[in-house]
Order: sequence, then C-alpha cells, then structure tokens
Amino acid sequence: MNKNHLRLSKRLCGHHAYLPGEQPKSNLQVIKLNTNENPYPPSPSVQAAINQEIALLNLYPNPISGDLREVIADMHGLQASQIIVGNGSDDLLNLCVRTFSDDELKVGMLHPSYSLYEVLTSVQGSELIRVKFNDKDFTLNIADILASGTNLFFLTNPHAPSGKAYGLTQLRRLLKDYKGLLVIDEAYADFAPKNALPLLKEYENLIITRTLSKSYSLAGLRIGYAIGNPRIIEELDKVREVYNVDRLAQVGAKAALLDQKYFNECLKKVIDQRDLLAKVFEELGWPFIPSAANFIFVQPLGINGQASAKTAANLFHYLLENKILVRYFPKHPLTESYLRISIGNPSQMNKVVESIKEWTKKEKQR
Amino acid sequence: MNKNHLRLSKRLCGHHAYLPGEQPKSNLQVIKLNTNENPYPPSPSVQAAINQEIALLNLYPNPISGDLREVIADMHGLQASQIIVGNGSDDLLNLCVRTFSDDELKVGMLHPSYSLYEVLTSVQGSELIRVKFNDKDFTLNIADILASGTNLFFLTNPHAPSGKAYGLTQLRRLLKDYKGLLVIDEAYADFAPKNALPLLKEYENLIITRTLSKSYSLAGLRIGYAIGNPRIIEELDKVREVYNVDRLAQVGAKAALLDQKYFNECLKKVIDQRDLLAKVFEELGWPFIPSAANFIFVQPLGINGQASAKTAANLFHYLLENKILVRYFPKHPLTESYLRISIGNPSQMNKVVESIKEWTKKEKQR
Repeated sequence: MNKNHLRLSKRLCGHHAYLPGEQPKSNLQVIKLNTNENPYPPSPSVQAAINQEIALLNLYPNPISGDLREVIADMHGLQASQIIVGNGSDDLLNLCVRTFSDDELKVGMLHPSYSLYEVLTSVQGSELIRVKFNDKDFTLNIADILASGTNLFFLTNPHAPSGKAYGLTQLRRLLKDYKGLLVIDEAYADFAPKNALPLLKEYENLIITRTLSKSYSLAGLRIGYAIGNPRIIEELDKVREVYNVDRLAQVGAKAALLDQKYFNECLKKVIDQRDLLAKVFEELGWPFIPSAANFIFVQPLGINGQASAKTAANLFHYLLENKILVRYFPKHPLTESYLRISIGNPSQMNKVVESIKEWTKKEKQR
Repeated sequence: MNKNHLRLSKRLCGHHAYLPGEQPKSNLQVIKLNTNENPYPPSPSVQAAINQEIALLNLYPNPISGDLREVIADMHGLQASQIIVGNGSDDLLNLCVRTFSDDELKVGMLHPSYSLYEVLTSVQGSELIRVKFNDKDFTLNIADILASGTNLFFLTNPHAPSGKAYGLTQLRRLLKDYKGLLVIDEAYADFAPKNALPLLKEYENLIITRTLSKSYSLAGLRIGYAIGNPRIIEELDKVREVYNVDRLAQVGAKAALLDQKYFNECLKKVIDQRDLLAKVFEELGWPFIPSAANFIFVQPLGINGQASAKTAANLFHYLLENKILVRYFPKHPLTESYLRISIGNPSQMNKVVESIKEWTKKEKQR
C-alpha cells in the first residue's frame, strides 16, 4: 500500500483476517462436518415467511429488528429491552469489542477457543490477553481470568473446539469477582443440558450471545442475538450498524424460533447421533472430551496406542480422500492431536464411522 | 454505565447513534417518500433465486460472495479482484473508516451530506473534518477538500440530500491532487447520466461504492459493493466480517443484477416521474436543485414568495397529515428551507402533487 502514499490505520499493523472453515461448492458431494452446521434444513415455516416478505424488499428493514426482539424475549421470558439482534452472533461479538475495549481497555479470551475474538480485537487495536488452560482437559481457569486485567472477556460455553460445558457454579464464582463485562458465547448452548440464562437476574456484568446458525439450521441467513442488562444493550445498540439485519433474515428467524416442535425434533436427532458417535469412540478406546455441543473433539489413536499430531493429520487426510471434511487445528499443542467432527445426519454419520473403522484397520496392517 | 464499574471505550465519548428515516409499519398505508426507496418490487427473478436457496440455509454462505463479485465485475467490465461486497454499502463505508483512519488519520465529508459518515467516524474515534459549501447551490469545494488534511474523504455523488451531480472534470481535479483515499459514494449514480467508473483506470486512490437499495429495489436485502484497486480491496477484505452477506442476499442480488431489462424499465419509470415532478416545481416557481438521483430537493415558497424553515416545516406537516411522508432536515441552514421528496410510482406522485397544490391554495387563503 506504499504506492500513492495511502496510509492504513495503525491499529491494523499485525492484523490477520479470520480464516473460516472451508466452504466447498455444494455440488462437490462432500460430507461436510467441519463448521458445525446443522444437517437438517430450516423449519418449513421459514420458507413461507420469506416468500411473503420478498415483495417488500424495496423497503428498508425495521432498523431494530423489533418484532424479532419481541419473539426472542417472549421465548426466554425476558423483556425486549434485554435483547439485541445481529447479522450473525459475530456481529454482536464485534459490537462488544467496539463498545468495551480501546487502547487501554483490554480484551480476554480462553486460548484456544473461537479465533474470531482475536481478529475482532486486532481490528479494534486493543490488547488481547489469552488465558491458557492449566490441564489437558480444558478445565476453566477462573483465577487467571480474574487476574487478566481485562475489561471484556469472551467465555465460549460450551467451549469450542473441545465441546466441554462449564457449570453454573463455576460461572457464578467468576461473575462474582470479575470486574469487567463477561460475554458468555452460547453458540452451542441449545445442545447442552444447561445454560447461563438464570444468571441474568443475579449479575449485571453479563452478556449471553446466541446464534441461529447451529441449532436452528440458519447458518446461511446470519442471525444471532445477545441478551443482557438493558443499559448494556442500549450501549451496543448505539454502535450497531443501522440496518444490520435484512428483512428476510428478520422474518425467517422469527418463523424458525416460533416452530419449536421442528426445532426440538432436529435437536434430538443431532444429540442422538452425537451420543452414538461417542459410543463408537468409547469402543475404539479413543479419548474424547464429553460434548455438550453438536460436535465431538476426539483424539484418534495410532497403531502404537498413542495420540499425536501426526496421527490426527493422517486421519484428517484419510477422511478427506473419502470426501469427508472435518476440522483439524494443528497450531496449538492442546488441539494438534485432536479432530473436531460436527454431527451430521444418520447416513452421514454411518459413513464417517465406517471410514474411521477402515482407517484403523489400515493402520493395523501397516 | 457506572454501576458495576463497567467502562466504555473512550472512543465512544460523545458518540451518538445514527437516526434513520422513519420506517412506519407497512399496514399504515402511508405514502413513503422519505428514504429514497424504489417504489417497485425487485425483479421477479429474485423470488425464484431466493426460493431455490432456502433449502441450503443450514450451510454457511460463501464468505467472499464469490459468484456475486464475478457478476458485478462482468457487468462493469472489471475483474472480480476489484470488487468487494457488503451488507449494504454502509458496511463498506464502515470498512473504509476502519481501514484508513485512526487517532491520527482523519476522515472528511461534505457537510451536509450522508450523516452516517459522522457516526462511523465517531465509533472509530477518528477526527472528522466537515468541508462546508461556499454557496447555496452545493457547488463542490475542491480547495477545502484538498486542504482538509484527511486520509479518507467521502464524496457523495450525486450529492445527498441535494441530488446535485459533480462532473468528471471536477472529480479528476480532486483526485489528481488529493493525497488520501477518495470514496465516491455512488448510491444514486444509476439515476444520473454519468458516473465515476472511467476514473478507476486513471487513479488508484479511488473507491466507488454502490448499493442495490435504490435502483435495484433491494433496500430490504442489504447489498452494496465497492470497486477499487485490488490492493485496496484486499485491505478492506481483511477487516470485513467473515460471513457479512447471507445466502439469500447473495443469490437475490445476483438475480437482480442479471435482469437488466427489468432494472432499466424501473429506472426509466422513476426518472420519468422525477422529471414530471421537476416540471410541477418549475410551474409553481419553487427553487429546486436539478436532480441526478431518485429524489428532488425543493424549496417550497410561502405566501410571501419566500423560502424559509417555517414554510418547509409547515408543508412537511401538511403532507404528513395527508399520509405522505417526506424528509425534512431542519438542523442545517443550507437544508432547513428544503424538503427532500423521494420519487414514487405515478399514483403516489399524483397524490403528492395534488396535496402540494392544495397546500398552496390554503396558504393563499390564510
């Protein structure tokens, strides 16, 4: 960018863009288990709602997604003033960074967790504190979060990529003493037995973010929301882009949320498949983190009975050759010997299990 | 936000949210001519494209809106590497602010023009330089832009709210000597006889932004794009949210752009109505800025033959009582005696003209 003397914001020095999981062309017939999407299409009522709205696309959307905030509030037994809607929950995570961090106010995150937090923080030019795990089981390190000196902390719960759930007792201990704003990113909470909603009444320094990308099968429509104290929501609203959520996303999300019967059916199917896959890993003797999400983080064992980065990479490539795409995170010692496998439909999961068993056979024959 | 000691980013001190034009509930039967929407629905091909995509909403969108970039590039005879797509052109204006301004690098804008530039700059915590007009005709003040010391300048062309078009000779003079990045916001360029596309070959410090909100009847779908040198596009892409444009917006926009026949028909209808309204104002003897956009900025004259803030406000309220919503900008001396009237369909415009004529009669009888 030196030519023409164009100068970039100094906040971007050292910034690298987020690298999303691969999105292969849909005609490639790959079994796509790399970005925790739902294997089922959205509720049929989404189609009807969207169709009715298309004739109105010449008009701007409702800038505050008003109807949708009401529906979300009703669903959780809350007030609309406690809700803000975003263009995916990424939009809301970004609003948190822009509202609650600057050159002095630091941001914190579990490391490893969702790497987008790093990207949002580096665009803002804020300092990022990475709180490490003290063990290999992704146990929550409360002391280090409290000592992080951050004004904003992103806690992914259930944790990604491990799938581990942190309980309310731990969260209460953290919230009681944390001086900044704690964002509990509950992208996967619908797949978990518990969530942090009961804590909203007890603590004001808490924001919970949710997405319709996973449990409501709407990754392609970009809808997330955040729940918190109305005074915090009001501050986030001031920074929000005016028309951040389009008309089709507003009515589509509303329709999906109102069809709880379909939602619960899909949820049950995914959880059943997750539990079946967990049993397969138990039978194989492969270590995995008990998952409260729609994926399993598993350590494939090599012929020597050991987990290693090489073994994980080997299985990753074997699956890819068999047109099964999972996620591999080779950059961190805590994740390099694992694969993260999103939960698909029964036919997809049968093929995954079949391929994994073939791989173990081949390994033994080497 | 003092309770709980939650601290806000210091960049937000003094920040006020953008106040969008009113979006009345669609069942109120108001003639809505306040936010420059297109009176016609989008191309019928948009509906078909969206319908086909709904079954895929469980999957994340293409993160770079790849197909759409190709279609846009083809349409303009450019390369896809010169294009970036956003969640409305507001998204792209924001990327420019985040990429090319900081505590030291200033942002500039014409004052008055699109007030969102101010909002985006204040969220970034950058200094804003407002370049004033030296006359009442919104003549481009090139000397003051060059002397502004800004690293990024937003030039709305055709200008809003005046509708005035600045010609290529003026733009060349500006680009030749301006040291920063000039963003020509061409939200209304499809309604104008000329645009800045020929300048892309001549200057590298130029970004042109476009929106499908106005000329393509897709305000509700949130699609905009920016055109520029690939090295600049690349920098903007690093700051862009990963999945900023949803699946339905990507395919809907593509369908709308490919249906140039429908686009040109709607465009002609809007321009014809604009020219008819201009004739009415000529007959009334009301001053207005010759418009290259889909609205007219007009100075209603009172019974004394004078324009004034009071007269403009009076007509604004009279139209509102008659369920016609136009835009009034009372906060600036250059705009306070004007109304901005978006161009609707023939039936809407007949009612507007009828109401205006009734108002002038009533004024005479006072």
